[in-house]
Amino acid sequence: MQSYRLSSSGAGLAGLRSTREEVPSPGPGEVLVAVRAAALNHRDQLVLDGDYVLPVRADGIPLAEGVGVVAEVGPGAGSGPAVGSRVVPAVFPRWRDGPFALDVADQLGGSLDGMLAEYRVLPGDALVEVPGFLTDAEAASLACAGVTAWNALTGGRGVRAGETVLTLGTGGVSLWAVQLAAAMGAKVVATTGDDAKAELLTRLGAAVVVNYRTAPDWPAAVREATGGRGADHVVEVAGTLAASVAATAFGGQVDVVGFMGTPAPVDPSALFTGGVTLRPVALGSRSHLVGLVRAVATHRLRPVVDRVFPFDRAPEAFAHHRAGGAVGKVVVSVATTGGR
Amino acid sequence: MQSYRLSSSGAGLAGLRSTREEVPSPGPGEVLVAVRAAALNHRDQLVLDGDYVLPVRADGIPLAEGVGVVAEVGPGAGSGPAVGSRVVPAVFPRWRDGPFALDVADQLGGSLDGMLAEYRVLPGDALVEVPGFLTDAEAASLACAGVTAWNALTGGRGVRAGETVLTLGTGGVSLWAVQLAAAMGAKVVATTGDDAKAELLTRLGAAVVVNYRTAPDWPAAVREATGGRGADHVVEVAGTLAASVAATAFGGQVDVVGFMGTPAPVDPSALFTGGVTLRPVALGSRSHLVGLVRAVATHRLRPVVDRVFPFDRAPEAFAHHRAGGAVGKVVVSVATTGGR
Amino acid sequence: MQSYRLSSSGAGLAGLRSTREEVPSPGPGEVLVAVRAAALNHRDQLVLDGDYVLPVRADGIPLAEGVGVVAEVGPGAGSGPAVGSRVVPAVFPRWRDGPFALDVADQLGGSLDGMLAEYRVLPGDALVEVPGFLTDAEAASLACAGVTAWNALTGGRGVRAGETVLTLGTGGVSLWAVQLAAAMGAKVVATTGDDAKAELLTRLGAAVVVNYRTAPDWPAAVREATGGRGADHVVEVAGTLAASVAATAFGGQVDVVGFMGTPAPVDPSALFTGGVTLRPVALGSRSHLVGLVRAVATHRLRPVVDRVFPFDRAPEAFAHHRAGGAVGKVVVSVATTGGR
Amino acid sequence: MQSYRLSSSGAGLAGLRSTREEVPSPGPGEVLVAVRAAALNHRDQLVLDGDYVLPVRADGIPLAEGVGVVAEVGPGAGSGPAVGSRVVPAVFPRWRDGPFALDVADQLGGSLDGMLAEYRVLPGDALVEVPGFLTDAEAASLACAGVTAWNALTGGRGVRAGETVLTLGTGGVSLWAVQLAAAMGAKVVATTGDDAKAELLTRLGAAVVVNYRTAPDWPAAVREATGGRGADHVVEVAGTLAASVAATAFGGQVDVVGFMGTPAPVDPSALFTGGVTLRPVALGSRSHLVGLVRAVATHRLRPVVDRVFPFDRAPEAFAHHRAGGAVGKVVVSVATTGGR
Repeated sequence: MQSYRLSSSGAGLAGLRSTREEVPSPGPGEVLVAVRAAALNHRDQLVLDGDYVLPVRADGIPLAEGVGVVAEVGPGAGSGPAVGSRVVPAVFPRWRDGPFALDVADQLGGSLDGMLAEYRVLPGDALVEVPGFLTDAEAASLACAGVTAWNALTGGRGVRAGETVLTLGTGGVSLWAVQLAAAMGAKVVATTGDDAKAELLTRLGAAVVVNYRTAPDWPAAVREATGGRGADHVVEVAGTLAASVAATAFGGQVDVVGFMGTPAPVDPSALFTGGVTLRPVALGSRSHLVGLVRAVATHRLRPVVDRVFPFDRAPEAFAHHRAGGAVGKVVVSVATTGGR
Repeated sequence: MQSYRLSSSGAGLAGLRSTREEVPSPGPGEVLVAVRAAALNHRDQLVLDGDYVLPVRADGIPLAEGVGVVAEVGPGAGSGPAVGSRVVPAVFPRWRDGPFALDVADQLGGSLDGMLAEYRVLPGDALVEVPGFLTDAEAASLACAGVTAWNALTGGRGVRAGETVLTLGTGGVSLWAVQLAAAMGAKVVATTGDDAKAELLTRLGAAVVVNYRTAPDWPAAVREATGGRGADHVVEVAGTLAASVAATAFGGQVDVVGFMGTPAPVDPSALFTGGVTLRPVALGSRSHLVGLVRAVATHRLRPVVDRVFPFDRAPEAFAHHRAGGAVGKVVVSVATTGGR
Repeated sequence: MQSYRLSSSGAGLAGLRSTREEVPSPGPGEVLVAVRAAALNHRDQLVLDGDYVLPVRADGIPLAEGVGVVAEVGPGAGSGPAVGSRVVPAVFPRWRDGPFALDVADQLGGSLDGMLAEYRVLPGDALVEVPGFLTDAEAASLACAGVTAWNALTGGRGVRAGETVLTLGTGGVSLWAVQLAAAMGAKVVATTGDDAKAELLTRLGAAVVVNYRTAPDWPAAVREATGGRGADHVVEVAGTLAASVAATAFGGQVDVVGFMGTPAPVDPSALFTGGVTLRPVALGSRSHLVGLVRAVATHRLRPVVDRVFPFDRAPEAFAHHRAGGAVGKVVVSVATTGGR
Repeated sequence: MQSYRLSSSGAGLAGLRSTREEVPSPGPGEVLVAVRAAALNHRDQLVLDGDYVLPVRADGIPLAEGVGVVAEVGPGAGSGPAVGSRVVPAVFPRWRDGPFALDVADQLGGSLDGMLAEYRVLPGDALVEVPGFLTDAEAASLACAGVTAWNALTGGRGVRAGETVLTLGTGGVSLWAVQLAAAMGAKVVATTGDDAKAELLTRLGAAVVVNYRTAPDWPAAVREATGGRGADHVVEVAGTLAASVAATAFGGQVDVVGFMGTPAPVDPSALFTGGVTLRPVALGSRSHLVGLVRAVATHRLRPVVDRVFPFDRAPEAFAHHRAGGAVGKVVVSVATTGGR
């Protein structure tokens, strides 16, 4: 089978190499998955650059999220998905439920092999079946970007129908957050720096779109759009924490999902006087994935795909994603040839 | 002003009498409300019959829920709604937030005067302003039926988008529950004994309607409609608790909102083996009312009104409601003449 | 090695037979544990009698809870406890955290082999290390009775310092509940039918002991002991649910842990008018076990052991436990001979 | 009666003047309280200096917390405490339960008159009766310092028995936090800059005391004292947020109670990689006060009193408190002369 491996984390794209290897066999409790598609996230670029916060396996297969079809079931994994099921694996295969903890921190595309390969052996109980109406490229973005948005919106005080959710920009997590928050009955206020993207955000469910270039004091614009109150929840992905706090309603929650670049320091007084809770979100558990898939199925939500690259042009997918212009997921199609 | 009073709880409709009294004046922290409409609930019939579970004020004004316009603000109530605002009072004026407790059990249309009068003096901090798109008759059903459904759906484990909510019949709480659960992104399964009502339930947001007359084993029908899983939440209003438990998913929650008639005993083993939590719901707090109003405003939800009676025919409203055929709220319009 | 197996669930003690088998080898992610002690619970009698609510493995090894020492670590289980560590396995090895669900329902001494054997191969990530100050017999009762009490006291609304917890009788779960609730800062009211046991309950932390034989209306006695308020939490183990509800404070919670015998039906009206939540407790997760062990270590809690039987007299342990007079745990010591 | 008023917030102690006024009369729902003692908090110094974050009433009576005896009950306040009861008023009289909100932000010693007077008229439903074993000086510190510590320890994820709580220094909130966390069954790690205070902290319930002068890297010392794990909860009062985050266990919670001086900025990356939630704590509700009083009564907790000043020397109490050397509460005794 074909696979990519990262010979050296820290070398950027130069470390990515294509390999030919044996199709692995599932052991007890394991399942062989024929991968159909894998998708890129910001974390995958950090892994390439050697900047990822968690340990990375030497010479590992990259990419944390993907989708595939069960090809073979190992002994004792019988209660899981059957041969032929289309499944996504939880990014942290051992984080089943409850709060994140360091003893379940092993993750695909990090300390464990990821999804950029034709076949992967995975723990049967880490897999969740996905609805048939999604394309492979769409399903590929559930496990990382989708789960992160779900965890942000359902954790801590949780979003209630009628509350306001603020999303920032048009990255993968933010687009999921717009769709999911709208499905939960929230009023969504979304920011973007590009009016051309406003239509997409509106179509996904945003009630108000704020352009942070034409309105540099965008927290004020958010307050104006919420009758002076501010947003009850902010899905913070952008490293603009101080501004996010300024846009938050008294008693609201900012979910810190991670950062693009280096975040500026935050004045604790602003948290205190604004009554704002800061809650860190480290992706999510298998239980979050199950909840997400139920919501996606109920609402027939279809995530936004920017572009799909064929398997042998995976490096171009990394480069395109890194360039930053993508709106929606950058996906690698892993069409297995059938020849193992 | 005109008013109704219940000369004797326990005498049924015969106890209801029309009176002429002075318009009261608001004291410190109080507000004079010109009532526009009041609505009937099952509890109001229990009050008439002397069967209500909480204490009832002698010779009190009936009806727990209604809507009016602020006519005058007493001293020190300045931070509340301004003159001219259209408001609903919380049924338990002193229950502001958190769990119900016996020291905030005073309620409108029970131990306190209710809403079936042209004017009422009420605590300013018990009032919540209502959205302009609702008619008076629609707004009148927020505080009791709407709040009860909101409390049931948001309390305990809370409804998540993608979960299944089961509602029973077409009473006021159940119709609200259908609309609210759909707004929260849940899949709604609704029961009715009358196919003619299925269309209404579908229009309000039910994904599946089960006729419990043609499908006497309706818990089985609910399971079938949920892929064998059962409903994650049941808003139990009907005294059919054993059947509701049988229709509940493992780990689900049954919200016990009250009972029509005498409920049959329940086998505790069924709760244990089904992993079902039973949670009693005693209407809700002012905070529930605030949350409900935000959701109603965001989704422009319009409750179902069965029929509106003029103020001088209020006894007919009680009789019509008691007859049981109403679908949606039975409302009394309280058009003040302007002459106090 | 020596082991017991249950040749036929439903035959009672007659189905229990001693066997001699090979010491098993740990596979990937597994650990070989040299068992030191195993303890009996009510559920184990139900398994013998064929009355257990969950599936039971044919010819399986009985007993859900026990303690042992890690003898060998399989490949890939390195992050778990090291060789020589004294550990208890979670009864549901795959239930790591969050609410119970049917897909993690496999359990030791039920659908999986249990602890009544000299050696057991177990998943490394199901094991939790235990504090050194506990004897083997004491540590053996953590995983089932201790975890059940911990789940009851920490789940749902959770016990707060200063609240009142009611425990029933002197079974294993109840004795743990007394100790744990006292450690949480609650006021403990305990019932017993035998004044001779009152001293033990007091020593374990009960502030008030009610004798339900001399005070047949013991719910009234509980109310009296709580200033008329009732208990905020009841750990219901006895099938006396209606009385437990009567002893519960308005807004309180009854944790239904299971039943001795057939529970009487319950009037749902009593739940509603008492504002009582019924919450089923199905043992607990590995995360509960971790929390329990931390509390036990902090407070140096020592569970009560009634009697320890040697391994070759295990059938007598079952008989003694079934006779019902035991106060505290009935334990089987599994002193391995060292010869595998 | 005698009273103090703050003629001008911002003038420091110079603004405090003694006045002689009429004893007020309780209106509907109100109660006249003969004050017995009032206590000082950091916030009261901010009020004097014009630095308080919430609005301050012009020429108001200072001090947020105190205790008194009900002298007279106004009309319609009958369900509250009876004449002769010893009570403390909630600092935010209208914040009954649930999360803090700006519409209940009126507070004693701020936008409302405070407790430094011989008599005060207060809303009857803001009062909570206190246990008899406390002296007046002890009871005076319940409503502000005690409630803040209770809110910090019970809010958000809440403290569980066996978890570790870190407290900072020997201010009023921190001393309460030590006592309450110990009563909840937590392991308490306390810091101080003075070995002479270590004994007091140990006596109040601290298991470990860290001297931040002799161990300048005190977060490391906290980790060492917790087996490398860090504290599960930190009650942050000192403006040392970055160090507190460094001392927090993965997944832990820092409760931001307020700041002495200007807090240093915080690096959001540290929150994210440490999995630390920041939760602002704005004192607490009447419901928190009720819970606190129950815990105090159950455990017979006695708060630490540094020094009691007579009413006519109240300015000295402010000066002593400001000097910073006090360990425990600085209290003003308000012995009413009986002559109104």
